[in-house]
Amino acid sequence: MRTPPARDGTPRPASATAPTRAVTSDLLQLPQASWRHVRTERMQHILKVQAAISRAVREHLDGAGFTELVPPILGPVTDPGIRGAKQASVDYYGHEYKIMSSAILYKQMMATAMGKVYFFSPNVRFEPLETATTGRHLVEFIQVDLEIPHGTYHDAMDTAEGLLQHVTKRVPETAGAHLEALGVDLADLTDVTFPRLTHAEAVDTLQALGHAASPSAEISWAHEKILSDHLGTPFFIHDYPKGSRGFYDMEDPERPGILRDFDMLYDGGFGEAVSGAEREHTYAKVVARMRETGEDPAKYGWYLDMLREGIAPSAGFGIGLERLTRYVCKLESILEARPYPKIAGVVSP
Amino acid sequence: MRTPPARDGTPRPASATAPTRAVTSDLLQLPQASWRHVRTERMQHILKVQAAISRAVREHLDGAGFTELVPPILGPVTDPGIRGAKQASVDYYGHEYKIMSSAILYKQMMATAMGKVYFFSPNVRFEPLETATTGRHLVEFIQVDLEIPHGTYHDAMDTAEGLLQHVTKRVPETAGAHLEALGVDLADLTDVTFPRLTHAEAVDTLQALGHAASPSAEISWAHEKILSDHLGTPFFIHDYPKGSRGFYDMEDPERPGILRDFDMLYDGGFGEAVSGAEREHTYAKVVARMRETGEDPAKYGWYLDMLREGIAPSAGFGIGLERLTRYVCKLESILEARPYPKIAGVVSP
Repeated sequence: MRTPPARDGTPRPASATAPTRAVTSDLLQLPQASWRHVRTERMQHILKVQAAISRAVREHLDGAGFTELVPPILGPVTDPGIRGAKQASVDYYGHEYKIMSSAILYKQMMATAMGKVYFFSPNVRFEPLETATTGRHLVEFIQVDLEIPHGTYHDAMDTAEGLLQHVTKRVPETAGAHLEALGVDLADLTDVTFPRLTHAEAVDTLQALGHAASPSAEISWAHEKILSDHLGTPFFIHDYPKGSRGFYDMEDPERPGILRDFDMLYDGGFGEAVSGAEREHTYAKVVARMRETGEDPAKYGWYLDMLREGIAPSAGFGIGLERLTRYVCKLESILEARPYPKIAGVVSP
Repeated sequence: MRTPPARDGTPRPASATAPTRAVTSDLLQLPQASWRHVRTERMQHILKVQAAISRAVREHLDGAGFTELVPPILGPVTDPGIRGAKQASVDYYGHEYKIMSSAILYKQMMATAMGKVYFFSPNVRFEPLETATTGRHLVEFIQVDLEIPHGTYHDAMDTAEGLLQHVTKRVPETAGAHLEALGVDLADLTDVTFPRLTHAEAVDTLQALGHAASPSAEISWAHEKILSDHLGTPFFIHDYPKGSRGFYDMEDPERPGILRDFDMLYDGGFGEAVSGAEREHTYAKVVARMRETGEDPAKYGWYLDMLREGIAPSAGFGIGLERLTRYVCKLESILEARPYPKIAGVVSP
């Protein structure tokens, strides 16, 4: 079932690689008639694997002392840090509410009250039309969103690494026949340490490979792919420069301009797995960061009331369940990782 | 931990009774500052029990051969049968979409493709303002929504009964200390058969008890409470008269005017637990029922396209997770069964 692991931690070839081309027009027909597509044997295998992934995620997080909570659905305000996507608005008894784009504000509330928490959170992001063919963007999706009170961003990276390792170990055990039917030979990651590069190191690596990466901006999707091919295992980029992320990613007090945050990226060119950080959590700092990032503090009524009274420091991350399914099943497109996929601008069930 | 069960199946006193008064003003303050309320010890016990309930539900359904699927969030159309509540609309790239009020249309799609399926489904219903103080209505909630292809409505009732029995057996085992801290002595229902009354029998019973119930309408909340006190265990009412339910509840071909549907009600006056039915599933019948119930078939594009091509007959039900939490924890109000409760007309996190 599995490829022999590299015991010395050196990079090794990924067991499968995501195609670089845009998704085929066949797949783009899928959303409009998803009731036909879900009846294919292939989709049934994928959805059985997805159920096994969800079980493995819960098993790992429950075992690590996290409590699963019912997720928020709507709120007066939601995560603004969604890189080019727009929030979905709803008229809530005469007030403008948003569908959660991520549960971050509520995670901070609940980690303060309950300790380590997670949600399987329903999220909606109106992505720009050009994302319809990337094969990795959905307008609605489920995000496993967790928070660790009094944790550092390295604790959060440890949790992300352990979670992905557990999933790649357990899913072949519990849904091996379905993986086999999909032709997937899932790499066992349990003895691999995922490399952790600072943003500056990632930029240096890219430059050494002959690519003009900027030390003051996000890593582009193309550059993430190059690093992924170069490293051959899942890896982290941390310490992003301020300006590239939301107001809630904590600025390092010792290193102004550097955020205590990270992404985890899949190997094989499957792109971003996880986005996480230590959180700004003091009222004054959050309001200052909101102003810097162009957010209007007046919109954040309940959240700022809560911060004024005080919350626990925390760290956490979100991992998209459909992207994780795409990675585990080695799918050309994320359209196959949801029974009723919705892509930007396309009307579908 | 548990009360001695009645081994002969006779009615017995409920272990706790829901208060008949409207919820107190103290509780009505809760939604606006939920971040304070979730820090109480009481809420932490309730949310730990809720997590144990969700685990027990998954354990039971996975064991019974159901597959859990990621739930739909938005769609061009959703369940219209939500008794006085309004659907939430979203502008979806220039098209009016709805947040799921229930996943029923998607359950039929997926049961045809996958066999027995369930979702933990995020639902929004804009309830009328007068529901704010009932103690049992939330604007957003999680519904465990399941469907059994080729099942009858009696199969669905069996599943609902088995599910509630498993939850009341397992939760004291896995979260007993939290129930104890809440002062709850949860009745073990594993050896109880839940009475199944037809709608006509329920009306007769009410009339025999001196209450003027109508044979052609829904059972009122007050009358459900009277039956609940009379029977002393969870119970079913089935075979509702046509006119009281959505177009998707199948009309009995042998008994025109009678629907092959049911509700399950909690004992102790905790009200409706479950609503379920066998489904109309042929194109012609569904369109005729839509017209009878005042629904415009033109709105149901993809759903009717799917029915025209053919789907499996099925039966299923939905059970509200917060109402189940209220029942298990014997809470005065459902406001305590969600970390961030939303009630009609009130702005809150």
